[in-house]
Amino acid sequence: MEPESFIYLDHAAATPVADFVLDAMRPYMTERFYNPSSPYAPAIQVRRDYEDAKAQLAAVIGAKADEIVMTAGATESINLMFNSVSGHVVTSSIEHQAVLQATMEHEYTLVQPDAKGTITPVAVLAALRPDTVLVSVALANNELGTIQPLKDIAMVLDAERRRRHMAGEQTPLYFHSDASQGAGLLDLHASRLGVDAMTLNAGKVYGPKQVGLLWAARHVILMPVVHGGGQERGLRSGTENVAGVVGFAAALTAASASRRAEAVRIASLRDSLKNALVAAFPEAVIAGNLKKQLPNFLHISFTGLDAERLLFALEMQGVLVATGSACAANKGTRSHVLTAIGMQPATADGSLRITLGKLTDQSTITRAADSIIAVVRSELKRVGK
Amino acid sequence: MEPESFIYLDHAAATPVADFVLDAMRPYMTERFYNPSSPYAPAIQVRRDYEDAKAQLAAVIGAKADEIVMTAGATESINLMFNSVSGHVVTSSIEHQAVLQATMEHEYTLVQPDAKGTITPVAVLAALRPDTVLVSVALANNELGTIQPLKDIAMVLDAERRRRHMAGEQTPLYFHSDASQGAGLLDLHASRLGVDAMTLNAGKVYGPKQVGLLWAARHVILMPVVHGGGQERGLRSGTENVAGVVGFAAALTAASASRRAEAVRIASLRDSLKNALVAAFPEAVIAGNLKKQLPNFLHISFTGLDAERLLFALEMQGVLVATGSACAANKGTRSHVLTAIGMQPATADGSLRITLGKLTDQSTITRAADSIIAVVRSELKRVGK
Repeated sequence: MEPESFIYLDHAAATPVADFVLDAMRPYMTERFYNPSSPYAPAIQVRRDYEDAKAQLAAVIGAKADEIVMTAGATESINLMFNSVSGHVVTSSIEHQAVLQATMEHEYTLVQPDAKGTITPVAVLAALRPDTVLVSVALANNELGTIQPLKDIAMVLDAERRRRHMAGEQTPLYFHSDASQGAGLLDLHASRLGVDAMTLNAGKVYGPKQVGLLWAARHVILMPVVHGGGQERGLRSGTENVAGVVGFAAALTAASASRRAEAVRIASLRDSLKNALVAAFPEAVIAGNLKKQLPNFLHISFTGLDAERLLFALEMQGVLVATGSACAANKGTRSHVLTAIGMQPATADGSLRITLGKLTDQSTITRAADSIIAVVRSELKRVGK
Repeated sequence: MEPESFIYLDHAAATPVADFVLDAMRPYMTERFYNPSSPYAPAIQVRRDYEDAKAQLAAVIGAKADEIVMTAGATESINLMFNSVSGHVVTSSIEHQAVLQATMEHEYTLVQPDAKGTITPVAVLAALRPDTVLVSVALANNELGTIQPLKDIAMVLDAERRRRHMAGEQTPLYFHSDASQGAGLLDLHASRLGVDAMTLNAGKVYGPKQVGLLWAARHVILMPVVHGGGQERGLRSGTENVAGVVGFAAALTAASASRRAEAVRIASLRDSLKNALVAAFPEAVIAGNLKKQLPNFLHISFTGLDAERLLFALEMQGVLVATGSACAANKGTRSHVLTAIGMQPATADGSLRITLGKLTDQSTITRAADSIIAVVRSELKRVGK
């Protein structure tokens, strides 16, 4: 079966580079290949184009180009943020591995989510200590799609900052969010979200892989992970990935411009799939916070079935979905997110993460629903349910 | 002036992505965009292609795919190597900023070069201490093109390892080389070079920018700089840059296959340029070790002239060259390399680094020689020489 003929419903794991993005990148690999640190005019023009691309990226989050550090993907961005603080860190037990692993380099407290995967402001408040320097909560959970109440968490942190100020305490308190998973569908404006620092990833918004950024407000003092020639204001050395950053800017700008319409379109498709599956299997468990969920996410569990068998049976029918997150999927362990929300093992083990995107339309959703219903029916029969 | 009409003689700063490299990359951005950690067949095929590309890269240095860590460029590769050791480090005063900055995270000794930019085994020997854990010397210097006697340095290090073994000392001693600048023109076979670890960079061999690797022999224990999902055997987390790595493999494989013929071709062009310039300006200073120099490098100094003025005058004629290294060029400081080899300031300040490459042929070299001669004559006249 040719790749083109697959119905791809795993947009949370990876997205294809859009044609217009590749078109924007190509010149910086070929005729405008210059090192942006070189002093002659065509290289200076490349430097300007690079800075323009950073300004476009910054504009999406309501920031300036010089507040952004380009990184090789979201993971490095997260590491840069966590490397910049020393002290107690608060994050949640349902964060992406990149955040969890960076967290473990510090003293930390993991906030537990509620049953819908929400990190509540009250839970964050309970985890704060006088020496907490960083709180990091993803904009949306990458397995359930639950959108986190960042603005409300920010209010809790503001209160703690005021308390410290009144008490004459100097410890800073930064609020970071990995917004990789919501980008292109949610508002990313930093001041509206109430965050001091944000991670974004081109590979989730139809841009190239291993291109990301860390935005940090001016009062956040960053410390480099990678030392060298002094690029990115000394915060990330190495010859700039001009093509990648230009592509990221094209991808994120376009995704942001169309995000409201795309969110409506995709939520409608997601709901039609959900309704079809729930109608066929009333006992299926839909996880996440349905009132605060990414419009492209459907997390559905068939208690007693084996998600991996479902996944491979669906693949035979040309439908590609995920069990848990892509990063955890090939390690054979149960999702830490589903454990954290208290899902029973027999339900968690029968969970599919179905994520829609630009490749999805009504025709693919209808065919996917038919395939999923057929495959689940067959598996239910096999296990005698 | 259109970029295509420039005569580009700064291949040491950046190289364009070759058409066949871009062709190899494109499918992994478009139809084969899958996350290589996903469990379905088309993603597993992408994982295989990624591993195949790593095996091709490894083969060029006589190694195995699982001894290689892909990084976002040479700088990160160097940081990964230096982050993996604790103890005294020996490197040279003429290394790239990436090595120098990573060195400064440790206790260190900088070996001084001789007047030709050579790091002699004797000088390395004198710098070794019982607690030295890492020696790092670039395969070829990135300003002068001087090829370093790695094999002879390796013999010195072998003697020190034997001494430690006999004395019952446990301190390891690793030999690392940043081979970014010689790749595509020199033999990169690790065991013939005598190194334990090597850094390579796609952006110098007609591959994409911000794609690099660290090869380390099995006995070298690496410690990650970037933590997260556990990709690259836990040594470099983050969704893999499949397109970039496939492109790097295509670029390096092709460059290695043609390197002997290309070295002869390019040395002949370089020598014709050198001869023309020396004939016109017998007082010009040719720096570097002419018997052990990269075939594409010409470092020429016009004492009393201002290299930046020469550079901009040449740019007006459509000829692009460098003064010093690209990374140092836009900081207005004198090259640390030229200072280290004892070049007088009035000579150093009149230095051009001219580096040839695949874009160079006899016609461009003839035109470049004419332009350089005209520009230098005009400047000599201006300053009254």
